[in-house]
Amino acid sequence: MLVHTDYLWFNTAKRREFVRITDDVAKIVAASGAQEGMVLVSAMHITAGVYVNDWENGLIEDFQTWLEKLAPGGLPYQHHQTGEDNADAHLKRTLMGHQVIVPITNGKLDLGPWEQIFYAEFDGQRRKRVVVKVLGV
Amino acid sequence: MLVHTDYLWFNTAKRREFVRITDDVAKIVAASGAQEGMVLVSAMHITAGVYVNDWENGLIEDFQTWLEKLAPGGLPYQHHQTGEDNADAHLKRTLMGHQVIVPITNGKLDLGPWEQIFYAEFDGQRRKRVVVKVLGV
Amino acid sequence: MLVHTDYLWFNTAKRREFVRITDDVAKIVAASGAQEGMVLVSAMHITAGVYVNDWENGLIEDFQTWLEKLAPGGLPYQHHQTGEDNADAHLKRTLMGHQVIVPITNGKLDLGPWEQIFYAEFDGQRRKRVVVKVLGV
Repeated sequence: MLVHTDYLWFNTAKRREFVRITDDVAKIVAASGAQEGMVLVSAMHITAGVYVNDWENGLIEDFQTWLEKLAPGGLPYQHHQTGEDNADAHLKRTLMGHQVIVPITNGKLDLGPWEQIFYAEFDGQRRKRVVVKVLGV
Repeated sequence: MLVHTDYLWFNTAKRREFVRITDDVAKIVAASGAQEGMVLVSAMHITAGVYVNDWENGLIEDFQTWLEKLAPGGLPYQHHQTGEDNADAHLKRTLMGHQVIVPITNGKLDLGPWEQIFYAEFDGQRRKRVVVKVLGV
Repeated sequence: MLVHTDYLWFNTAKRREFVRITDDVAKIVAASGAQEGMVLVSAMHITAGVYVNDWENGLIEDFQTWLEKLAPGGLPYQHHQTGEDNADAHLKRTLMGHQVIVPITNGKLDLGPWEQIFYAEFDGQRRKRVVVKVLGV
């Protein structure tokens, strides 16, 4: 069995930002040499997520509006008594999910026609990391 | 290592429908010959999900009502400026999750007493696909 | 390839309780002997979840308050016509997620600085189980 590990680094310009990473993951899979298997793509920070959905700017805005409605910033969260101000970022990333597994078939990401992998940053403007781990043959 | 890939196709009668697929996944695992490992079950379309929960019609209704409350249809979503009308389906599938991994132990799905795998369709009435990928020995 | 399976048992004092299990999972990974791979940590009951987030009591309270707001107990859920009273527990576990995959690198859980694995019980005070399955080399 083949195991291959790599990391993607992010330092977003805005505090909240969704970044498409499908091509970055595909490159790591190609470098691994795996023809068949799976790749785990997982945020290593707890105020960021990784999700699969549409590469369409209107929908990305809809996600941001919706997350603000379900998990608003600016509330008197208990977590803020530690000096933090990002409790809502922890909740938002929970809604979006913090990791995905993508199947690898015939040496390529086995994604449906509209599936794109995104990094979802909810407390950015600093260096944060995603682990990409390939298991395959 | 053994890798085995198959696909399940759906074309639901209703636009929104939850379909139990535990037996379909179990059949693919049996066909793979894997005795120990994991199976990934992942929706390949971004308005559908895959989740594990109870096979009880009342609870399935509760899920539908709850999803409509948290991610309502009929709002003026930005995504609809592209001509689409299904932004809520993208949000609903995000809440339910788009994939699960089921462990395989002694040649069988290693599920708890009430765990059932479901396909969750939020924009159906057309052919859509789920990938089922087994990694094991 | 190496496959190793173990189970964690829980019987929480309170009906709702979040239990940190990072060290329990790390012990199982050490026992497996895997140097590189992945470990699946998955709740086997449908009113409990497994998630990765911060080990900070204020934030844990925030999660509980937030889950009660998004998926309240005490509503006339259809599921309760079966005699159950825990429909909200099924919804809450769906929001938190029911499983995580943690990468294993150099024989250890490859977690970011603040990542901790939690068992999230929403209908406890009885024996329930989590499956921990290692795939690696």
